[in-house]
Amino acid sequence: MALDPIPFLSKYASFPSVSTDSTYAEGMKGAREYIKDALAGLGFDVEEVATPKHPIILADRGPDREDVPHVIIYGHYDVQPADPFELWKTPAFEPVVRDGRLYGRGTADNKGPQAVQLTALSRLLEKHPDLPLRITFMIEGEEEMGSPSFPGFLKKYAERLSQADMILLSDTGSPGTEQIVVTTGLRGMFGLEVTLTGPAMDLHSGVNGGPVLNPIQALTELCASLHNKDGRVNVPGFYDAVVEPLPWEREELAKLPMSEQQYKDLLGVPDFVHPGGATALELVRFFPTLEFNGIGGGYQGEGSKTIIPAKAFVKITCRLVPDQDAADIEAKVRKTLEERCPPQVKMSINPETGGSPYYVAPPGRPNTAPDLSPVFARACEAAEVSIEKAFGKKPLYLREGGSVPIIRQMKDATGLDSLMIGLFTPRDNLHAPNESFEIDMMEKGIAAYEGILHRLAFGE
Amino acid sequence: MALDPIPFLSKYASFPSVSTDSTYAEGMKGAREYIKDALAGLGFDVEEVATPKHPIILADRGPDREDVPHVIIYGHYDVQPADPFELWKTPAFEPVVRDGRLYGRGTADNKGPQAVQLTALSRLLEKHPDLPLRITFMIEGEEEMGSPSFPGFLKKYAERLSQADMILLSDTGSPGTEQIVVTTGLRGMFGLEVTLTGPAMDLHSGVNGGPVLNPIQALTELCASLHNKDGRVNVPGFYDAVVEPLPWEREELAKLPMSEQQYKDLLGVPDFVHPGGATALELVRFFPTLEFNGIGGGYQGEGSKTIIPAKAFVKITCRLVPDQDAADIEAKVRKTLEERCPPQVKMSINPETGGSPYYVAPPGRPNTAPDLSPVFARACEAAEVSIEKAFGKKPLYLREGGSVPIIRQMKDATGLDSLMIGLFTPRDNLHAPNESFEIDMMEKGIAAYEGILHRLAFGE
Repeated sequence: MALDPIPFLSKYASFPSVSTDSTYAEGMKGAREYIKDALAGLGFDVEEVATPKHPIILADRGPDREDVPHVIIYGHYDVQPADPFELWKTPAFEPVVRDGRLYGRGTADNKGPQAVQLTALSRLLEKHPDLPLRITFMIEGEEEMGSPSFPGFLKKYAERLSQADMILLSDTGSPGTEQIVVTTGLRGMFGLEVTLTGPAMDLHSGVNGGPVLNPIQALTELCASLHNKDGRVNVPGFYDAVVEPLPWEREELAKLPMSEQQYKDLLGVPDFVHPGGATALELVRFFPTLEFNGIGGGYQGEGSKTIIPAKAFVKITCRLVPDQDAADIEAKVRKTLEERCPPQVKMSINPETGGSPYYVAPPGRPNTAPDLSPVFARACEAAEVSIEKAFGKKPLYLREGGSVPIIRQMKDATGLDSLMIGLFTPRDNLHAPNESFEIDMMEKGIAAYEGILHRLAFGE
Repeated sequence: MALDPIPFLSKYASFPSVSTDSTYAEGMKGAREYIKDALAGLGFDVEEVATPKHPIILADRGPDREDVPHVIIYGHYDVQPADPFELWKTPAFEPVVRDGRLYGRGTADNKGPQAVQLTALSRLLEKHPDLPLRITFMIEGEEEMGSPSFPGFLKKYAERLSQADMILLSDTGSPGTEQIVVTTGLRGMFGLEVTLTGPAMDLHSGVNGGPVLNPIQALTELCASLHNKDGRVNVPGFYDAVVEPLPWEREELAKLPMSEQQYKDLLGVPDFVHPGGATALELVRFFPTLEFNGIGGGYQGEGSKTIIPAKAFVKITCRLVPDQDAADIEAKVRKTLEERCPPQVKMSINPETGGSPYYVAPPGRPNTAPDLSPVFARACEAAEVSIEKAFGKKPLYLREGGSVPIIRQMKDATGLDSLMIGLFTPRDNLHAPNESFEIDMMEKGIAAYEGILHRLAFGE
């Protein structure tokens, strides 16, 4: 019996599977068991691969033969933290349908797309129980923390995974059901948490204020030094490896049904910045960033507390584009921080795992890789046809601002390329309060996925 | 019967009278009732004056006659917030004696000095029940929040208070029992909480990172603009009214039994800064500051959350010196912030009440005010003699870095000057975890206060 996607997803998204916060271990386990049961129900051989943090689910189904295409479908069962909780209109982990959308943390990123994939497959299997297609689901639990265990997993499993022909996933975005995007590139990412420590304890800002370099002052000056006045990242060598987008990429971008004003309104910002003179949409897809995700230090409560705090910290992440290398840029940022840190404070830096950017141009484009796998090329064609059929319009081929670190790692370790079909939209509030997944997108996505898998299996 | 100071203070400091945090209303009431009962027990007529926030205690005792000196003794029953609680070796509001010190929030600032004053007075009254001295205790509950209700209180009570001859208080510091400081000036202060808001909600830093000015980035750049490279405050006109210290003030400072290295070790900072080339001890006592007391924005939890936060805030206070005016400098800082705030974020500023600096040179110094009250002059002499007797050394006359806003307001509204005897030491951890008050300081302080009150009453 085919899956019913809305109840399936509602239950899946009710597990608070926040990977970055160890207090959510129970929610992680719940989501994992739930998706494992669903895969077993569809006839998959399900395996749970232990890692230093959260297990990876590997599940195989279908004939293991040379002449049968083998697709790895990737997803992740972990979600972003849901705070600030008070900004959710309905509880983050009690999914509800409202105005044609299913609200809840993870409904879009990334549990909704998995509901789409599993439902499509379940419908296809109802009609073709002996589907001539080998599928390996690979569903990890550390995507939202930068997949720190994935490189270790790959060391052991790369050979087995490289038996497949390609990767298929939906962990990227599209403007909406009126225009689906096939993602041709992902930004890379790495993170650094920087803590500056000054005095041995919080000090009275009257009694001791003047000769003590306030760690918040030192931190804000250090942070402020990381961008130029025009908004570009002020780290020597940061842009050296950046490859400018090709003309066809700019043409595709011009077809996006979103003006800069619409984008501005969507985000609710008073105005945009344009580092290096690029447009807002170019900046998101083609250029790197250095972003401050969080900052803290001193007294943050009600009223005032007149102290010089002992320490202050900032959480930094960089988004990288081809051909920037994550390790290289991380080293450059670290070096810059170390050189600019004044001697009156002590600096400690804690890294967060990340990865380099990924890029693949579809067949027929000037920058297509000459050795593109034939199954991947067929899948691109299947996607174009099936997406046009389900959504009424051909997809656009664009790079995207987000990061899925494992995609590049899989390419490096197994040679497999990834076909990324965007099922999120800017209205889904990814990583923010009131995340939701559009029911219409879900239904059309299921139709498109059923078409793609059918064409991969039967060639039509 | 004379008060027993250690049990008296232990109980007083057990009330969590945090004025800035409304959840501590019960602790505020407890401290207030406790000190009112103690004053009534010493024969004072006790009055509780309601204010918009926390009541002020006024208590009178002694003959109301022209020929009897009338001293207002000032103190405050509120304390600083005690967080971070986890850094306290014993609970902040469960005072205990350890290694010659009484530990607990408020034991030094300012409940300990009140224990000293009340004990000294109780001993004196045992010997002289008809003490020819009129004393008005004025104990407020908003000192740690900048005394916002005090100006309103003064409008009603200034005339009555101006019947007194002077103010006596101990809400300032000394290096230790080996060297007491009589404070000749206090820095002024005001506070601003600045919040920058960018997007309508937290955004995914991958999907939207590039064209959005991150509010943390905008805030750190704004904060960084507030100091020059040499560490001086970079706000136009900030230093215009600053009066350089006189030679005798530098001479007194040179007698302080503390080297810059000792001070550095005490605070546990790797190194000092020297804005404008001044020494560390000069910076604290003679020059103004712009300090960041707290900063916050975005994700501060475990691990990472890759967002562009919707907002970020910083808490700023400025410490001011003669002849800077609090309202004038606040306006200058606000104007600077408004001019420098980029258009991609919205700024809101919430002020925290403060006050201008205060200054009084003791009799015989070149900068003594010509109209110094005779009782104040006598009190200065009484303090010099009594402090030398109790502590074995004459006091130093120095300005101090802290602020007691009401002192300047009292001067403006009543003409009364304040004699400030420092009973805190740098080892007391004011406003910080593990605040304590030294038992030896308490005992010698009681002896000195008994001497001062005796001399004021009897002239010897």
